[in-house]
Amino acid sequence: MSRLFTFIGGNDGPWRITSTRAIAGDPLPPALRVRVSAGDESASGSAWALRGLTSNERYVTRLEKTGLVAAQPPVGRPDATCAALVPISKDDSWWNLTQDERRHIFEESSGHIRIGMDYLPAVARRLHHCRDLGRTEPYDFLTWFEFAPADTPAFDELLTRLRATPEWRYVSREVEIRLQRD
Amino acid sequence: MSRLFTFIGGNDGPWRITSTRAIAGDPLPPALRVRVSAGDESASGSAWALRGLTSNERYVTRLEKTGLVAAQPPVGRPDATCAALVPISKDDSWWNLTQDERRHIFEESSGHIRIGMDYLPAVARRLHHCRDLGRTEPYDFLTWFEFAPADTPAFDELLTRLRATPEWRYVSREVEIRLQRD
Repeated sequence: MSRLFTFIGGNDGPWRITSTRAIAGDPLPPALRVRVSAGDESASGSAWALRGLTSNERYVTRLEKTGLVAAQPPVGRPDATCAALVPISKDDSWWNLTQDERRHIFEESSGHIRIGMDYLPAVARRLHHCRDLGRTEPYDFLTWFEFAPADTPAFDELLTRLRATPEWRYVSREVEIRLQRD
Repeated sequence: MSRLFTFIGGNDGPWRITSTRAIAGDPLPPALRVRVSAGDESASGSAWALRGLTSNERYVTRLEKTGLVAAQPPVGRPDATCAALVPISKDDSWWNLTQDERRHIFEESSGHIRIGMDYLPAVARRLHHCRDLGRTEPYDFLTWFEFAPADTPAFDELLTRLRATPEWRYVSREVEIRLQRD
Protein backbone atom coordinates (compact mmCIF):
# COMPACT_ATOMS: atom_id res chain seq x y z
CA MET A 1 0.00 0.00 0.00
CA SER A 2 1.79 3.06 -1.27
CA ARG A 3 0.10 5.60 1.04
CA LEU A 4 1.50 3.97 4.21
CA PHE A 5 4.94 4.83 5.57
CA THR A 6 6.92 3.59 8.57
CA PHE A 7 9.43 5.92 10.24
CA ILE A 8 12.01 3.80 12.05
CA GLY A 9 14.31 5.22 14.71
CA GLY A 10 17.36 3.17 15.63
CA ASN A 11 21.00 2.74 14.60
CA ASP A 12 20.47 2.68 10.82
CA GLY A 13 19.22 4.86 8.05
CA PRO A 14 20.30 7.77 5.86
CA TRP A 15 18.96 10.42 8.26
CA ARG A 16 21.11 11.22 11.31
CA ILE A 17 19.23 12.60 14.31
CA THR A 18 20.78 15.91 15.38
CA SER A 19 18.29 16.68 18.16
CA THR A 20 15.13 15.33 19.76
CA ARG A 21 12.93 17.63 21.79
CA ALA A 22 9.77 16.67 23.68
CA ILE A 23 7.47 19.67 23.26
CA ALA A 24 4.41 18.18 25.01
CA GLY A 25 3.94 14.83 26.74
CA ASP A 26 6.32 11.89 26.87
CA PRO A 27 9.50 11.81 24.76
CA LEU A 28 10.42 8.96 22.37
CA PRO A 29 13.17 6.46 23.29
CA PRO A 30 16.63 7.64 22.16
CA ALA A 31 17.79 6.76 18.63
CA LEU A 32 20.72 7.75 16.41
CA ARG A 33 19.26 7.50 12.93
CA VAL A 34 15.96 7.33 11.05
CA ARG A 35 14.92 5.54 7.92
CA VAL A 36 11.63 6.04 6.12
CA SER A 37 10.13 2.86 4.72
CA ALA A 38 7.28 2.76 2.21
CA GLY A 39 4.69 0.37 3.57
CA ASP A 40 4.30 -1.40 6.90
CA GLU A 41 7.45 -2.66 8.58
CA SER A 42 7.70 -4.40 11.93
CA ALA A 43 11.14 -2.89 12.65
CA SER A 44 12.06 -5.25 15.46
CA GLY A 45 15.18 -4.19 17.30
CA SER A 46 14.68 -0.52 16.51
CA ALA A 47 14.16 2.10 19.22
CA TRP A 48 10.78 3.11 17.80
CA ALA A 49 8.63 2.73 14.70
CA LEU A 50 5.88 5.20 13.83
CA ARG A 51 3.36 4.52 11.07
CA GLY A 52 1.13 6.90 9.19
CA LEU A 53 -0.46 7.30 5.81
CA THR A 54 -1.12 10.10 3.40
CA SER A 55 -4.81 10.73 2.85
CA ASN A 56 -7.31 13.16 1.42
CA GLU A 57 -7.04 16.67 2.82
CA ARG A 58 -9.44 17.49 5.63
CA TYR A 59 -9.59 21.31 5.71
CA VAL A 60 -8.21 22.89 2.56
CA THR A 61 -10.55 24.68 0.13
CA ARG A 62 -10.13 24.67 -3.65
CA LEU A 63 -8.76 28.22 -3.61
CA GLU A 64 -6.18 27.32 -0.96
CA LYS A 65 -5.32 24.08 -2.74
CA THR A 66 -4.61 25.91 -5.99
CA GLY A 67 -2.16 28.17 -4.17
CA LEU A 68 -0.51 25.26 -2.38
CA VAL A 69 -0.13 23.11 -5.48
CA ALA A 70 1.51 25.99 -7.35
CA ALA A 71 4.08 26.58 -4.59
CA GLN A 72 4.78 23.36 -2.72
CA PRO A 73 7.89 21.33 -3.61
CA PRO A 74 8.14 17.54 -3.50
CA VAL A 75 10.10 15.68 -0.82
CA GLY A 76 13.42 14.24 -1.96
CA ARG A 77 15.11 17.36 -3.40
CA PRO A 78 18.89 16.72 -3.50
CA ASP A 79 19.75 19.99 -1.74
CA ALA A 80 17.16 19.48 1.02
CA THR A 81 19.58 17.71 3.36
CA CYS A 82 17.82 18.83 6.54
CA ALA A 83 14.61 17.24 7.76
CA ALA A 84 12.30 17.21 10.73
CA LEU A 85 9.83 14.60 11.89
CA VAL A 86 7.14 16.12 14.13
CA PRO A 87 4.67 13.59 15.57
CA ILE A 88 1.68 15.19 17.34
CA SER A 89 -1.55 14.15 19.00
CA LYS A 90 -4.58 16.30 19.59
CA ASP A 91 -6.81 15.88 22.64
CA ASP A 92 -10.42 14.66 22.81
CA SER A 93 -11.76 18.20 22.90
CA TRP A 94 -10.39 18.64 19.35
CA TRP A 95 -11.80 15.40 18.01
CA ASN A 96 -15.19 16.09 19.55
CA LEU A 97 -15.50 19.37 17.65
CA THR A 98 -17.59 19.40 14.49
CA GLN A 99 -16.02 19.94 11.06
CA ASP A 100 -16.98 23.63 10.86
CA GLU A 101 -15.53 24.27 14.33
CA ARG A 102 -12.26 22.48 13.53
CA ARG A 103 -11.91 24.30 10.21
CA HIS A 104 -12.55 27.65 11.91
CA ILE A 105 -9.81 27.07 14.48
CA PHE A 106 -7.43 25.54 11.92
CA GLU A 107 -7.54 28.32 9.37
CA GLU A 108 -9.78 31.32 10.07
CA SER A 109 -8.43 31.60 13.63
CA SER A 110 -4.95 30.02 13.41
CA GLY A 111 -3.98 30.54 9.76
CA HIS A 112 -2.35 27.12 9.53
CA ILE A 113 -2.40 27.13 5.72
CA ARG A 114 -1.51 30.82 5.47
CA ILE A 115 1.51 30.36 7.78
CA GLY A 116 2.69 27.31 5.83
CA MET A 117 2.45 29.24 2.55
CA ASP A 118 4.98 31.77 3.87
CA TYR A 119 7.66 29.03 3.84
CA LEU A 120 7.02 27.69 0.35
CA PRO A 121 8.85 26.58 -1.69
CA ALA A 122 11.66 26.40 0.90
CA VAL A 123 10.05 23.78 3.15
CA ALA A 124 8.66 20.55 1.67
CA ARG A 125 6.04 18.84 3.82
CA ARG A 126 4.29 15.48 3.83
CA LEU A 127 1.48 14.82 6.31
CA HIS A 128 0.74 11.28 7.51
CA HIS A 129 -2.41 10.31 9.43
CA CYS A 130 -2.21 7.71 12.22
CA ARG A 131 -5.40 8.15 14.22
CA ASP A 132 -7.54 5.79 12.11
CA LEU A 133 -4.96 3.08 11.46
CA GLY A 134 -7.01 0.62 13.48
CA ARG A 135 -4.45 -0.14 16.16
CA THR A 136 -3.37 2.02 19.04
CA GLU A 137 -0.86 4.49 17.71
CA PRO A 138 1.01 6.93 19.96
CA TYR A 139 0.29 9.94 17.72
CA ASP A 140 -2.51 11.27 15.52
CA PHE A 141 -0.24 12.78 12.86
CA LEU A 142 3.35 12.54 11.66
CA THR A 143 4.58 15.49 9.63
CA TRP A 144 7.81 15.15 7.69
CA PHE A 145 9.59 18.32 6.55
CA GLU A 146 12.62 18.73 4.26
CA PHE A 147 14.64 21.88 3.59
CA ALA A 148 18.13 23.12 2.72
CA PRO A 149 20.51 23.96 5.60
CA ALA A 150 20.26 27.69 4.79
CA ASP A 151 16.52 27.55 5.38
CA THR A 152 16.86 26.25 8.95
CA PRO A 153 16.08 29.66 10.55
CA ALA A 154 12.95 29.93 8.39
CA PHE A 155 11.86 26.46 9.46
CA ASP A 156 12.47 27.34 13.13
CA GLU A 157 10.21 30.35 12.65
CA LEU A 158 7.50 28.23 10.99
CA LEU A 159 7.35 25.92 14.02
CA THR A 160 7.34 28.84 16.45
CA ARG A 161 4.46 30.54 14.63
CA LEU A 162 2.37 27.35 14.41
CA ARG A 163 2.87 26.58 18.11
CA ALA A 164 1.63 30.05 19.03
CA THR A 165 -1.75 29.50 17.32
CA PRO A 166 -5.09 28.65 18.99
CA GLU A 167 -4.98 25.31 17.16
CA TRP A 168 -1.94 24.26 19.20
CA ARG A 169 -3.92 24.49 22.47
CA TYR A 170 -5.40 21.16 21.39
CA VAL A 171 -2.00 19.47 20.94
CA SER A 172 -1.55 17.04 23.82
CA ARG A 173 1.67 15.36 22.68
CA GLU A 174 4.42 16.60 20.40
CA VAL A 175 8.00 15.61 19.71
CA GLU A 176 10.38 17.41 17.36
CA ILE A 177 13.11 15.30 15.76
CA ARG A 178 15.68 17.17 13.65
CA LEU A 179 17.72 15.25 11.09
CA GLN A 180 20.53 15.60 8.58
CA ARG A 181 21.09 13.41 5.57
CA ASP A 182 24.62 12.03 5.12
CA MET B 1 -9.12 -0.64 20.38
CA SER B 2 -12.79 0.05 20.96
CA ARG B 3 -13.37 2.10 17.79
CA LEU B 4 -12.50 -0.84 15.48
CA PHE B 5 -15.12 -3.41 14.46
CA THR B 6 -14.93 -6.54 12.28
CA PHE B 7 -18.04 -7.66 10.37
CA ILE B 8 -17.71 -11.38 9.67
CA GLY B 9 -19.85 -13.15 7.08
CA GLY B 10 -20.02 -16.94 7.25
CA ASN B 11 -22.07 -19.68 8.89
CA ASP B 12 -22.24 -18.19 12.39
CA GLY B 13 -23.57 -15.18 14.19
CA PRO B 14 -26.80 -13.75 15.55
CA TRP B 15 -27.68 -11.93 12.31
CA ARG B 16 -29.16 -14.04 9.51
CA ILE B 17 -28.65 -12.71 6.00
CA THR B 18 -32.00 -12.36 4.24
CA SER B 19 -30.66 -10.82 1.02
CA THR B 20 -27.43 -9.60 -0.56
CA ARG B 21 -27.54 -7.21 -3.46
CA ALA B 22 -24.60 -5.86 -5.43
CA ILE B 23 -25.56 -2.28 -6.25
CA ALA B 24 -22.27 -1.28 -7.91
CA GLY B 25 -19.13 -3.29 -8.64
CA ASP B 26 -18.32 -6.81 -7.54
CA PRO B 27 -20.52 -8.69 -5.04
CA LEU B 28 -19.23 -10.30 -1.84
CA PRO B 29 -18.85 -14.10 -1.57
CA PRO B 30 -22.05 -15.77 -0.33
CA ALA B 31 -22.61 -16.13 3.42
CA LEU B 32 -25.50 -17.18 5.67
CA ARG B 33 -24.91 -15.16 8.81
CA VAL B 34 -23.03 -12.17 10.15
CA ARG B 35 -21.46 -11.43 13.48
CA VAL B 36 -20.08 -8.08 14.55
CA SER B 37 -16.91 -8.29 16.59
CA ALA B 38 -15.45 -5.41 18.59
CA GLY B 39 -11.79 -5.14 17.61
CA ASP B 40 -9.69 -6.80 14.94
CA GLU B 41 -10.41 -10.43 14.20
CA SER B 42 -8.74 -12.59 11.58
CA ALA B 43 -11.90 -14.64 10.96
CA SER B 44 -10.23 -17.49 9.12
CA GLY B 45 -12.72 -19.86 7.55
CA SER B 46 -15.36 -17.17 7.13
CA ALA B 47 -16.69 -16.10 3.72
CA TRP B 48 -15.57 -12.51 4.26
CA ALA B 49 -14.41 -10.13 6.98
CA LEU B 50 -14.75 -6.38 6.69
CA ARG B 51 -13.07 -4.00 9.12
CA GLY B 52 -13.83 -0.39 9.87
CA LEU B 53 -13.64 2.07 12.71
CA THR B 54 -15.76 4.86 14.06
CA SER B 55 -14.05 8.23 13.85
CA ASN B 56 -14.61 11.95 14.12
CA GLU B 57 -17.29 13.31 11.82
CA ARG B 58 -16.02 14.79 8.57
CA TYR B 59 -18.88 17.03 7.34
CA VAL B 60 -21.41 17.76 10.05
CA THR B 61 -21.71 21.29 11.48
CA ARG B 62 -22.51 22.07 15.10
CA LEU B 63 -26.11 22.99 14.22
CA GLU B 64 -26.61 19.71 12.36
CA LYS B 65 -24.88 17.75 15.12
CA THR B 66 -27.22 19.18 17.76
CA GLY B 67 -30.21 18.02 15.73
CA LEU B 68 -28.73 14.58 15.14
CA VAL B 69 -27.74 14.02 18.76
CA ALA B 70 -31.26 14.90 19.92
CA ALA B 71 -32.90 12.43 17.51
CA GLN B 72 -30.56 9.54 16.80
CA PRO B 73 -31.04 6.26 18.69
CA PRO B 74 -28.24 3.90 19.74
CA VAL B 75 -27.62 0.55 18.05
CA GLY B 76 -28.73 -2.50 20.03
CA ARG B 77 -32.38 -1.62 20.73
CA PRO B 78 -34.24 -4.88 21.58
CA ASP B 79 -37.03 -4.22 19.05
CA ALA B 80 -34.64 -3.32 16.23
CA THR B 81 -34.43 -6.88 14.88
CA CYS B 82 -33.74 -5.83 11.28
CA ALA B 83 -30.35 -4.60 10.15
CA ALA B 84 -28.46 -3.71 7.00
CA LEU B 85 -24.75 -3.59 6.31
CA VAL B 86 -23.95 -1.32 3.37
CA PRO B 87 -20.25 -1.24 2.38
CA ILE B 88 -19.39 1.44 -0.18
CA SER B 89 -16.36 2.86 -1.93
CA LYS B 90 -16.06 6.23 -3.57
CA ASP B 91 -13.90 6.82 -6.64
CA ASP B 92 -10.72 8.88 -6.94
CA SER B 93 -12.61 11.88 -8.30
CA TRP B 94 -14.33 12.12 -4.87
CA TRP B 95 -11.15 11.77 -2.85
CA ASN B 96 -9.36 14.33 -5.00
CA LEU B 97 -11.97 16.97 -4.22
CA THR B 98 -11.18 19.54 -1.55
CA GLN B 99 -13.08 19.64 1.75
CA ASP B 100 -15.37 22.52 0.70
CA GLU B 101 -16.25 20.74 -2.55
CA ARG B 102 -17.01 17.43 -0.79
CA ARG B 103 -19.10 19.16 1.87
CA HIS B 104 -21.07 21.03 -0.82
CA ILE B 105 -21.92 17.83 -2.67
CA PHE B 106 -22.57 15.87 0.54
CA GLU B 107 -25.04 18.27 2.12
CA GLU B 108 -25.87 21.48 0.24
CA SER B 109 -26.39 19.55 -3.00
CA SER B 110 -27.34 16.03 -1.82
CA GLY B 111 -28.88 16.65 1.61
CA HIS B 112 -27.27 13.54 3.08
CA ILE B 113 -27.80 14.71 6.67
CA ARG B 114 -31.27 16.16 5.94
CA ILE B 115 -32.42 12.89 4.34
CA GLY B 116 -31.08 10.84 7.24
CA MET B 117 -32.90 13.08 9.75
CA ASP B 118 -36.23 12.15 8.13
CA TYR B 119 -35.76 8.55 9.35
CA LEU B 120 -34.84 9.32 12.94
CA PRO B 121 -35.40 7.89 15.48
CA ALA B 122 -36.62 4.85 13.48
CA VAL B 123 -33.27 3.96 11.90
CA ALA B 124 -30.14 3.67 14.05
CA ARG B 125 -26.87 4.09 12.14
CA ARG B 126 -23.20 3.56 12.86
CA LEU B 127 -20.59 4.63 10.30
CA HIS B 128 -17.22 2.88 10.11
CA HIS B 129 -14.25 4.20 8.12
CA CYS B 130 -11.94 1.75 6.28
CA ARG B 131 -10.03 3.89 3.80
CA ASP B 132 -7.20 4.85 6.16
CA LEU B 133 -6.79 1.52 7.97
CA GLY B 134 -3.33 1.15 6.47
CA ARG B 135 -3.90 -2.06 4.56
CA THR B 136 -5.82 -2.54 1.36
CA GLU B 137 -9.49 -2.69 2.24
CA PRO B 138 -12.19 -3.45 -0.34
CA TYR B 139 -14.42 -0.54 0.78
CA ASP B 140 -14.03 3.01 2.07
CA PHE B 141 -16.99 2.90 4.47
CA LEU B 142 -19.20 0.34 6.20
CA THR B 143 -22.54 1.64 7.43
CA TRP B 144 -24.54 -0.49 9.83
CA PHE B 145 -28.26 0.26 10.23
CA GLU B 146 -30.78 -1.18 12.73
CA PHE B 147 -34.57 -0.78 12.71
CA ALA B 148 -37.81 -2.54 13.69
CA PRO B 149 -39.50 -4.75 11.05
CA ALA B 150 -42.35 -2.25 10.69
CA ASP B 151 -39.84 0.42 9.63
CA THR B 152 -38.51 -1.62 6.70
CA PRO B 153 -40.44 0.41 4.07
CA ALA B 154 -39.05 3.63 5.57
CA PHE B 155 -35.53 2.21 5.42
CA ASP B 156 -36.04 1.15 1.78
CA GLU B 157 -37.06 4.73 1.01
CA LEU B 158 -34.00 6.12 2.82
CA LEU B 159 -31.66 4.05 0.61
CA THR B 160 -33.57 4.99 -2.55
CA ARG B 161 -33.37 8.69 -1.74
CA LEU B 162 -29.65 8.58 -0.90
CA ARG B 163 -28.83 6.67 -4.10
CA ALA B 164 -30.61 9.32 -6.18
CA THR B 165 -28.35 12.12 -4.89
CA PRO B 166 -25.39 13.73 -6.72
CA GLU B 167 -23.14 12.31 -3.98
CA TRP B 168 -23.90 8.77 -5.16
CA ARG B 169 -22.39 9.46 -8.60
CA TYR B 170 -19.05 9.06 -6.82
CA VAL B 171 -19.92 5.63 -5.39
CA SER B 172 -17.89 3.06 -7.33
CA ARG B 173 -18.72 -0.04 -5.30
CA GLU B 174 -21.73 -0.80 -3.11
CA VAL B 175 -23.27 -3.92 -1.63
CA GLU B 176 -26.47 -4.05 0.41
CA ILE B 177 -26.74 -6.88 2.94
CA ARG B 178 -30.08 -7.20 4.75
CA LEU B 179 -30.24 -9.10 8.04
CA GLN B 180 -32.59 -10.32 10.71
CA ARG B 181 -31.68 -11.11 14.30
CA ASP B 182 -32.85 -14.49 15.63
